[in-house]
Amino acid sequence: MSGEQELGITESKEHNPGDWYAEVVQKAGLADYAPMGGFIVTRPRGYALWEGIQSALDGWFKETGVQNAYFPLFIPESYLEREKDVVEGFDPEVAWVTQGGYEELEERLAVRPTSESIITPFIARWVRSHRDLPLRVNQWCSVVRWEATDTKPFFRTKEFLWQEGHTAHRDHEDAWAETMRRLDQYERLYTDVLAMPVLRGQKPAHDKFPGADTTTTVEALMPDGKSVQAGTSHHLGTSFAEAYDVTYADEDEEEQLAHTTSWGVSWRALGALVMTHSDDQGLVLPPTIAPTQVVCVPIWQEDTREEVLDYCGELVDDLEAAGVRVDLDDRDERNPGFKFNEWELKGVPLRIEVGPNEVSDGEVTLVHRPDGETEVADRDDLEGAVEEALDTVYAKLYAAAEETLESNVREAESRDEILGTIGRHGGYVETGWCGEESCEAEIKEQIAAEIVMVPLDDEEPPVHDECGVCGETAERTAYFARTY
Amino acid sequence: MSGEQELGITESKEHNPGDWYAEVVQKAGLADYAPMGGFIVTRPRGYALWEGIQSALDGWFKETGVQNAYFPLFIPESYLEREKDVVEGFDPEVAWVTQGGYEELEERLAVRPTSESIITPFIARWVRSHRDLPLRVNQWCSVVRWEATDTKPFFRTKEFLWQEGHTAHRDHEDAWAETMRRLDQYERLYTDVLAMPVLRGQKPAHDKFPGADTTTTVEALMPDGKSVQAGTSHHLGTSFAEAYDVTYADEDEEEQLAHTTSWGVSWRALGALVMTHSDDQGLVLPPTIAPTQVVCVPIWQEDTREEVLDYCGELVDDLEAAGVRVDLDDRDERNPGFKFNEWELKGVPLRIEVGPNEVSDGEVTLVHRPDGETEVADRDDLEGAVEEALDTVYAKLYAAAEETLESNVREAESRDEILGTIGRHGGYVETGWCGEESCEAEIKEQIAAEIVMVPLDDEEPPVHDECGVCGETAERTAYFARTY
Repeated sequence: MSGEQELGITESKEHNPGDWYAEVVQKAGLADYAPMGGFIVTRPRGYALWEGIQSALDGWFKETGVQNAYFPLFIPESYLEREKDVVEGFDPEVAWVTQGGYEELEERLAVRPTSESIITPFIARWVRSHRDLPLRVNQWCSVVRWEATDTKPFFRTKEFLWQEGHTAHRDHEDAWAETMRRLDQYERLYTDVLAMPVLRGQKPAHDKFPGADTTTTVEALMPDGKSVQAGTSHHLGTSFAEAYDVTYADEDEEEQLAHTTSWGVSWRALGALVMTHSDDQGLVLPPTIAPTQVVCVPIWQEDTREEVLDYCGELVDDLEAAGVRVDLDDRDERNPGFKFNEWELKGVPLRIEVGPNEVSDGEVTLVHRPDGETEVADRDDLEGAVEEALDTVYAKLYAAAEETLESNVREAESRDEILGTIGRHGGYVETGWCGEESCEAEIKEQIAAEIVMVPLDDEEPPVHDECGVCGETAERTAYFARTY
Repeated sequence: MSGEQELGITESKEHNPGDWYAEVVQKAGLADYAPMGGFIVTRPRGYALWEGIQSALDGWFKETGVQNAYFPLFIPESYLEREKDVVEGFDPEVAWVTQGGYEELEERLAVRPTSESIITPFIARWVRSHRDLPLRVNQWCSVVRWEATDTKPFFRTKEFLWQEGHTAHRDHEDAWAETMRRLDQYERLYTDVLAMPVLRGQKPAHDKFPGADTTTTVEALMPDGKSVQAGTSHHLGTSFAEAYDVTYADEDEEEQLAHTTSWGVSWRALGALVMTHSDDQGLVLPPTIAPTQVVCVPIWQEDTREEVLDYCGELVDDLEAAGVRVDLDDRDERNPGFKFNEWELKGVPLRIEVGPNEVSDGEVTLVHRPDGETEVADRDDLEGAVEEALDTVYAKLYAAAEETLESNVREAESRDEILGTIGRHGGYVETGWCGEESCEAEIKEQIAAEIVMVPLDDEEPPVHDECGVCGETAERTAYFARTY
């Protein structure tokens, strides 16, 4: 590994965002490409970020009544077929196991593309009475969708890591509250952990999850002007309950159909995080999720080596005791400049520099990633200064992402304006929409932009009275954008 | 779910251990059978136990230099074939993906049966210099082995959850130290978390992991007299390094072959836990891993309801504040006797009973699972009393398991004695062994017992001078047992 980071990032985020992203992911040690197209190896620095996302979400899920479980990796074809909408949605993308050992299987087994069709029948078995509701299970696992596209780590891969939550409720309202609870938690993941503002909305009817009443989404804007579906929460109504007989006895012993939801966040969250904040020096991470929040780099000559290293050792111990994730880079074989570059590449949010002057003055120098802002802090108040600096770094990252998002939501009132605005600036275009898929199709065909969401509130009047594409009466506001 | 536990456990652990085990697993809500033979659904109460095992091991791994990562679910057939020993070992048990969407794949993909053949090539890529060693990665995932056997949840399933650690080292000694470090941690999992003593040893040469120098094992004795391989740690020598070119430049810039290890614990640990401690009333769990350690059951009449519930609410709050995982069962629709049975079935280690007498005397009644021992504690010293009672429950479970193990290791000096002892008592038979597989085969054929381990110390003289089977000079001590 020692040789890799010497190369540095050679691509430009602004001019060549695709290659730049691939380079950052590999050189920062987040992931490598696997031998089969569409698959990646998630390296420890990448997986630690996924663990950070897991840890945040898993805690919130458990605080709000969710229990983890684990369902089989394989789903018999006949099970998948019971939910016609789902199988139609996923059939072209399913990886099939057809042989076990030397035998042909009698029935093909799908490697799960999503688990409604295996989880819902078990929910049906476990739910008898209204007292068993709500029932909420979640699993952290990988799923496989055989899409033939260029591999883009964490964004486009045939196998990806995610969590999928599945719940059953007594009525529509309770299921809707659940759908919103999870969407809120996804939004909180982005705003409070990943330093990214997101937009909330629902997918247009023609783009819902197969079988869903309502598919809600949080959308994140990437620096190249494309929108990423960054988390989804589906109100499934009673369609899955009907297909798999999820019923319960109510207080009057009457049999009722349950209402179900499902919701998921994948490692796209990780890709979106990397793409949003990183720069031409490499990875940039918010301190909330950085596996190493602070690195201390000692700067010495032969005659000051001992005093500088002692001073660093003590301050690192103090920070560790205060709960900071801190490393001391005391390698002899590397000079400070090399170390600065390496830790910038790997996205450590705060660097502490200590030379003989800092030691004699009882100070430390703090350097913020990404903007290089430097401050001098008293050694005696180090814990406070570090905590404040980490908060400041987070606030800077969030503010920059927020400014980008806010300046990239633009209104348009005509087809030409929609096409021109997205063509020139990327980002989101807000316009009136009649509700017809054909109006989206027209835009999609010309500039590959689609309606990524409409507002959640059905009653809200559209931003314009007329559809920006066809000019008929607008029923909703639509947000057009190019997407991943 | 409300109806299930009313049935109670109907099978006997002593007389029908197989059916008893299956009943406990299902009625305690740990797992259900999936629609495809060989697969199970791990329900929240079962998965929580797995999370407990994960949490303990993962912490110890990370404290000792291991980082988590994630490698692809699928392994191309050509990759698997590069390690001939591995492919020969697993070929009959591999599930093959042959179709993606509507297309036949050009190369079959194995659903990973274990990941040496995909992880080692990446370790080879990441290791350049002696400074990159040791390199340690671990993944928590599921693996698939297409064995055609009766499903036994957590013991025999085609898909199972496990962790697999893979490391590379500069020399044989360092790899051996790693092999032992992980075996020590596995032993610690059993003794300190699962309340189970285990035996440590190595597999005979003919039963090693394909390609390994040494396969070490911790073996746990089940109540039916069979041994379970409860965790394994392999010193792989240089065989995988040779197959996948894992080399490094040493201090003198000379190219050297690395030495690798791999080690794993599966959800068998969970099955062994359930089988060891549980009884005819249901699940028994050590407090270390029980998702609910204490349940408080209020006992009231109409006129004492409020005071009893208030008293219970407060003590539950106090225990929670003290870090105890405690639940209050204040359901109106169930009587105390029903609740006692339900929580015994579900394996809560300690029950607190509170009636009007306890309230007026400022006391509580504590009831231990599994032996029903009852003690009265002062309300004022509740936290201390509960902590002590939980420690006592753990000690009781461990002592019982230890007694079972110690009284079930027996010496035998002849073939008839080996056959008779295992036939009559099960358990382990310690005997001299010449080192020939044929002597094991003879015993295996007659009573399906095999050599589950030999001592780790190669220099230790055998327990008897002659092989218990053939009478030739004994080279090692062998432990024979029937196995899962």
